[in-house]
Amino acid sequence: MKLWQKDKTSSKEVEQFTIGRDPEFDILLAPFDVLGSMAHAIMLEKIDLLSKEELSLLLKGLKEIYLEIEKGQFDIQEGVEDVHSQVEFLLTERYGEVGKKLHSGRSRNDQVLVDLKLYYRAAIRELVEASKELFDLLQKLSKKHQSDLMPGYTHTQLAMPSSFGLWFGSFAEGLAEDLELVLTAYKLADKNPLGSAAGYGSSFPLDRNMTTKLLGFDDLHHNVINAQNSRGKTEKTLSFAMAGLAGTLNRMAADICLFMNQHFGFISFPDELTTGSSIMPHKKNPDVFELIRAKTNQIQNIPQAITLILTNTTTGYHRDLQLLKEHIFPGLESLISCINMTSLMLKEIKIKPEILKDSFYKHVFSVEVVNELVLKGVPFRDAYKKVGMDIEKDDFNPNQEQVNHTHEGSIGNLCVDDISAKMGAVIEKFDFEKVNKAYIKLLGSTT
Amino acid sequence: MKLWQKDKTSSKEVEQFTIGRDPEFDILLAPFDVLGSMAHAIMLEKIDLLSKEELSLLLKGLKEIYLEIEKGQFDIQEGVEDVHSQVEFLLTERYGEVGKKLHSGRSRNDQVLVDLKLYYRAAIRELVEASKELFDLLQKLSKKHQSDLMPGYTHTQLAMPSSFGLWFGSFAEGLAEDLELVLTAYKLADKNPLGSAAGYGSSFPLDRNMTTKLLGFDDLHHNVINAQNSRGKTEKTLSFAMAGLAGTLNRMAADICLFMNQHFGFISFPDELTTGSSIMPHKKNPDVFELIRAKTNQIQNIPQAITLILTNTTTGYHRDLQLLKEHIFPGLESLISCINMTSLMLKEIKIKPEILKDSFYKHVFSVEVVNELVLKGVPFRDAYKKVGMDIEKDDFNPNQEQVNHTHEGSIGNLCVDDISAKMGAVIEKFDFEKVNKAYIKLLGSTT
Amino acid sequence: MKLWQKDKTSSKEVEQFTIGRDPEFDILLAPFDVLGSMAHAIMLEKIDLLSKEELSLLLKGLKEIYLEIEKGQFDIQEGVEDVHSQVEFLLTERYGEVGKKLHSGRSRNDQVLVDLKLYYRAAIRELVEASKELFDLLQKLSKKHQSDLMPGYTHTQLAMPSSFGLWFGSFAEGLAEDLELVLTAYKLADKNPLGSAAGYGSSFPLDRNMTTKLLGFDDLHHNVINAQNSRGKTEKTLSFAMAGLAGTLNRMAADICLFMNQHFGFISFPDELTTGSSIMPHKKNPDVFELIRAKTNQIQNIPQAITLILTNTTTGYHRDLQLLKEHIFPGLESLISCINMTSLMLKEIKIKPEILKDSFYKHVFSVEVVNELVLKGVPFRDAYKKVGMDIEKDDFNPNQEQVNHTHEGSIGNLCVDDISAKMGAVIEKFDFEKVNKAYIKLLGSTT
Amino acid sequence: MKLWQKDKTSSKEVEQFTIGRDPEFDILLAPFDVLGSMAHAIMLEKIDLLSKEELSLLLKGLKEIYLEIEKGQFDIQEGVEDVHSQVEFLLTERYGEVGKKLHSGRSRNDQVLVDLKLYYRAAIRELVEASKELFDLLQKLSKKHQSDLMPGYTHTQLAMPSSFGLWFGSFAEGLAEDLELVLTAYKLADKNPLGSAAGYGSSFPLDRNMTTKLLGFDDLHHNVINAQNSRGKTEKTLSFAMAGLAGTLNRMAADICLFMNQHFGFISFPDELTTGSSIMPHKKNPDVFELIRAKTNQIQNIPQAITLILTNTTTGYHRDLQLLKEHIFPGLESLISCINMTSLMLKEIKIKPEILKDSFYKHVFSVEVVNELVLKGVPFRDAYKKVGMDIEKDDFNPNQEQVNHTHEGSIGNLCVDDISAKMGAVIEKFDFEKVNKAYIKLLGSTT
Repeated sequence: MKLWQKDKTSSKEVEQFTIGRDPEFDILLAPFDVLGSMAHAIMLEKIDLLSKEELSLLLKGLKEIYLEIEKGQFDIQEGVEDVHSQVEFLLTERYGEVGKKLHSGRSRNDQVLVDLKLYYRAAIRELVEASKELFDLLQKLSKKHQSDLMPGYTHTQLAMPSSFGLWFGSFAEGLAEDLELVLTAYKLADKNPLGSAAGYGSSFPLDRNMTTKLLGFDDLHHNVINAQNSRGKTEKTLSFAMAGLAGTLNRMAADICLFMNQHFGFISFPDELTTGSSIMPHKKNPDVFELIRAKTNQIQNIPQAITLILTNTTTGYHRDLQLLKEHIFPGLESLISCINMTSLMLKEIKIKPEILKDSFYKHVFSVEVVNELVLKGVPFRDAYKKVGMDIEKDDFNPNQEQVNHTHEGSIGNLCVDDISAKMGAVIEKFDFEKVNKAYIKLLGSTT
Repeated sequence: MKLWQKDKTSSKEVEQFTIGRDPEFDILLAPFDVLGSMAHAIMLEKIDLLSKEELSLLLKGLKEIYLEIEKGQFDIQEGVEDVHSQVEFLLTERYGEVGKKLHSGRSRNDQVLVDLKLYYRAAIRELVEASKELFDLLQKLSKKHQSDLMPGYTHTQLAMPSSFGLWFGSFAEGLAEDLELVLTAYKLADKNPLGSAAGYGSSFPLDRNMTTKLLGFDDLHHNVINAQNSRGKTEKTLSFAMAGLAGTLNRMAADICLFMNQHFGFISFPDELTTGSSIMPHKKNPDVFELIRAKTNQIQNIPQAITLILTNTTTGYHRDLQLLKEHIFPGLESLISCINMTSLMLKEIKIKPEILKDSFYKHVFSVEVVNELVLKGVPFRDAYKKVGMDIEKDDFNPNQEQVNHTHEGSIGNLCVDDISAKMGAVIEKFDFEKVNKAYIKLLGSTT
Repeated sequence: MKLWQKDKTSSKEVEQFTIGRDPEFDILLAPFDVLGSMAHAIMLEKIDLLSKEELSLLLKGLKEIYLEIEKGQFDIQEGVEDVHSQVEFLLTERYGEVGKKLHSGRSRNDQVLVDLKLYYRAAIRELVEASKELFDLLQKLSKKHQSDLMPGYTHTQLAMPSSFGLWFGSFAEGLAEDLELVLTAYKLADKNPLGSAAGYGSSFPLDRNMTTKLLGFDDLHHNVINAQNSRGKTEKTLSFAMAGLAGTLNRMAADICLFMNQHFGFISFPDELTTGSSIMPHKKNPDVFELIRAKTNQIQNIPQAITLILTNTTTGYHRDLQLLKEHIFPGLESLISCINMTSLMLKEIKIKPEILKDSFYKHVFSVEVVNELVLKGVPFRDAYKKVGMDIEKDDFNPNQEQVNHTHEGSIGNLCVDDISAKMGAVIEKFDFEKVNKAYIKLLGSTT
Repeated sequence: MKLWQKDKTSSKEVEQFTIGRDPEFDILLAPFDVLGSMAHAIMLEKIDLLSKEELSLLLKGLKEIYLEIEKGQFDIQEGVEDVHSQVEFLLTERYGEVGKKLHSGRSRNDQVLVDLKLYYRAAIRELVEASKELFDLLQKLSKKHQSDLMPGYTHTQLAMPSSFGLWFGSFAEGLAEDLELVLTAYKLADKNPLGSAAGYGSSFPLDRNMTTKLLGFDDLHHNVINAQNSRGKTEKTLSFAMAGLAGTLNRMAADICLFMNQHFGFISFPDELTTGSSIMPHKKNPDVFELIRAKTNQIQNIPQAITLILTNTTTGYHRDLQLLKEHIFPGLESLISCINMTSLMLKEIKIKPEILKDSFYKHVFSVEVVNELVLKGVPFRDAYKKVGMDIEKDDFNPNQEQVNHTHEGSIGNLCVDDISAKMGAVIEKFDFEKVNKAYIKLLGSTT
């Protein structure tokens, strides 16, 4: 059964090729398709395209389907083209002609667009929550390890004193800043495309502001062509946000793989969280972080995958857009699992204490000594030259016990609270509660 | 002359290879390097690393250099490694030992970071202004051509009635939404990294909040490792924003190249803005838009170029970062010129009137007729089937004179004011004035 | 059960995260894993690490498993880590201790490497065969439509006379040239990595030339680190070859989407191979070609996905490499299906006859007329100017019936045979038969 | 002056925007433009479009220009559009009307295509020569350091004994294998596009086989649309080859940056080849290799840059193609300089001797000991378990003096000659001499 089928059948091969992986994604869209249809139906009644009775039947039917989806009792039947058709098919089967009226003033183009927007909002919520959990853990570790010094590297060369507190905290603040991009993606997902129909609007007097409110959208894509263009742009923007977070996780994973190397030995994990080797009995391999490194590369590649599909194409829906789901949907799942896996691992991280006391590291204190001279009045370049000479003559013996950094964001002053405030400020701007309330109201409107 | 030179010289080849294209970018950073140094100097005096007299000399010297840069009288001399060295060299040459004191509590890493941040803020301002100008033109064209109907395509197939008003307006709203990403990039650029030194902070009691205010930054990267990690992340985020805008321009250029094709003939430009052919005397080629299409592809490739350089690398400065400039600097210039060139062209665009009156286009009115039936009470799927039959029997003669779309964002209700409000809301959040005021105060602090 | 398990168990989450999608790919590697093991066993016997009797048992057991795989009776059991473990497990279960001896002188690193190489050889064979079938069809269409003129475009502007014969033939020759890259990938896949163990060789006196011959490899990666580095490089090179073919299909699909547009109307397909619209009853949408366009973009993105995973990493196996399969395996399947779907569609393509006779196209004959003047002795630039003037004065009436192009590769001289020879020459270099023979011999060696 | 100019002038801005960076690339194409024109002229005389006298004048004029180019006396004058126009302008200025006849049967499309093909052949020659020089050095180092053991890593974890001989040799064989892709790109560049005119052929009876021979091409693109499609495909294929080589250099650079880290300390370079730090007097930074790492990432990004420009576009020249030069031309230069810089550095590389004798490394010998047990008859899995136990009890004391690896490509049997043979076989297939001879003959044909 296909909505656009008149009297002919497409060849089987063409059907398989064109449907592709859509059914697996459509199942994820199902609850949102129902919510979108409820809002659309309510609006149709308001503009007199449905009677009160028809609306009542439709809302009853849609809520039934919603509950079936929640219980895992919903499926796209053999021969039914997609989730939209399945919902309409069930409605018509159960409540007759009125099921056919639901599609008035709507095209599958704006129907799938609204489904996707609602899905992305929900996925972003999960992403934000996972990020917040990791953030809290990093902040905790940062405080806990404030006094645990480690070397800092530049050019992968030993450079200056650093600390685990600083290192953990850097990723916490990094995540807080990454969420700004996620917020931008959220805002774009939070704009109502419903009513754009096939991308050129409708001759029905649709009330788009009404569906905007009913679905808890913050705003709408006014211009209907722009609404259609948001298919692709929303995914691209979301992929940027995902690539941002992925970049932060990638760097942490790269650091950990290096720090677990035996030459460094700064970090270790319990045996059950690392893997061994079939031929080298002594190994403790950082497989989880190698896979996070690789998976975050896959995620960082999604913007390019999407751009290739979109670029050089003209205004208006193209079937090409269907394939964006193959990148964004698994990508979101993968990113959330990378974040959660990072949390799972970091809960068990063990760090090597008192690393810097080893004379191997004494040169990382060179700038400390230079600065001490400066504080005593020696011009910087002269102090710098003197210390360089001492080192060359192997006459350099700094205090390796502690460092006295006091400025904002330094070893001795991690600004943990400021970083928490930064995170709080961005998280506050995601108004997930508004969405919740809208859905509760919508589902409650059937009674 | 190199700052890190002790007694040895690197081979000439290594020097050339490592310096690369930096001098051409350093010139662009020069004014910002001076401003950053002024703020750093004022702060050093506050924490007693400079005397009042030293500060006064340094500010005098720096302002001199700033004015020389403005007059185009500044150059990086042969043998001087970079802009930072040149500024320090001039100060020392002119005012003696005090020039050497300026580098206290600072590394070239945070120095270049702050220069870049200031440069990006200025470049983003240009980008926003160019976008606003194009936006205003698109809005004007949208209003002017509100009643000029054209066909809308889906699957590159004739689909439904559209209008030039709708088409121009879609890019206007698109630009407004694109600026959200630009704003996110701006916010990241608008965070102070100064004081992070080589990425691990300093043992001097630097006052980072003070430099934050002096340079008109909105906030700071607190954690110093995170500040260093913002090198790369700032560029990546900015490249996302650039790729967003580029995507919108790319689509418009693709549309125009298609609509200028003789089969369509919807759009034309004066001869002096198109090009001919060496062998086909009748051609009017859309070279400008083909180049915009290609250039926006180059810009959309920048996120990937940056990601490749950054990915899988560990915490801490790597020389690799230097090459980010080769992508971002020319990319910003190219994007701004694509926007301006689009404006220049659109000022002269001519559209073909009354396109849809031709019976060639009658099928695009099919949904209009379906909807009329629905408004008369026919269920949607039945109306749809009837019109399909009529078309198959070639018995379909719609009114091709006008369409009656009234909902938000449709042909008859373009929501031009709402779109302007959307643009206004985002532009307002770029607080360029704050930056201006800070610079004026900084440059005035010498007297 | 895990090979590297000593006494501890990893957490369940870590296990799921690290295994990922491997089981679905491992099933595809199973037959090749068995073949590789057979060759390895024969070699081990030769260097006295197995007795004749042990070898006999192992070959018997491996052949049994091979046949089970062929019959679809092979599965990776719950709790068994991968295909290598499953095969070893079955052997040990059935034939005792000897099963444990098979892994001597081998690591999972070179074992999976050899599996992958054999798999890629087989996949490339399918790719080449599908390409050859499409090539033959294109050549047939090129000959059939030699005299069917159509316009040629430059800058998407009408430019010169072209023909369907030329257009079909261009993709035929394109494919022939694309196969050169595929051949390069094949040659890299056709190099034996076995014996490189974990990437640093083995202290056993392995006979790597022997396994090279037994498995029908053309050559070996001599240096064992280089053999390990071929993991990743083989995939990257193969992805280049896939991207090459994908580029050719993408262009054909883009052309077809344009030529099916109603303004052009050059090409059509039977209704059962196109799709309609839920709201626009008259549409015949080119969904198949839109999806080919998008899928070939996904394929063209694979090189970048692989590069991101590989870049900036150091010598030696990293778990990151596991994820390459997620790009290459589905990518190969998608590419083959795009080629086959193109063939399926082109078998039914209908072209519009006598396009160029319409006076709409007369300007595309301008160069023909210029050249006629030149052949009569007028200097080119002067002839060019005259025709340009005539056109401007609307005094240009060329013969639109036929063109007289005679040189190699032109409308009147398509060089179909030369193009077939080019294809033949490249296909001949894939020595698939050699591989077949080696496998038959290997599987026969058990009796 | 523009060839296609009739009576009107384009706006200055459009001109600047459309010309872009072309002049800097056109200068590089100049000698090849002249050679292509010589071949074209000779062919035109053969088919009676030029008289013998006209040909003689043109060849004389072209050779003059060629010599001027060689002496650096050639420039594209203000107001002249491109290199093709400049050459034609000079010929016409010096020899009158005959200059105008040269463009018969040719379009700027196939003219620039042939220029590019000749340029790429020359650039590939440089690339191959630089690669061969690096290869020879690596082979020398491999032999020299055959007995210098070092640890081999998997998962960045100490794994097994390796050697500098093995490590250097791996990149030598890697380069030899990379050149297969370069050869494929060369073969595509070595196909004659001349005669395809604007992409649809010519009504003149051009002799394309003649120009193929005159320019030393190995073959031609027969189908003229395919010839035009080779614009873009040639660059894409070449970029794949460049990305292949870049991947090998990237890995070597990543290894070196790691091995120069003080924890490893395996590798060092003289001070004049490393750089210091403005604030950390003890550092010896691997800037050259960090830049090689980043530059090879830029090069590995070129395939994507090119693909974005090409994808989703239709058959026929588009102005977009002009921008491919901005990626390929600087990319070739950068790649050659990365190769040469790697050679320059490796000539001075110093390795740390006797690394593995340190007890820190004893675990890397675990597999050696396992294998010894196996050779004494212990089943592999049992031997493996025993060694694992010994290591856990800290009762493991292997011989760390030497390893006894004897198979092909292992520490004790580097197969240096086989690797040289592999390199020799691929280099032999680049028939650079044929090209040389053709050019000498062409330039000699004027006398």
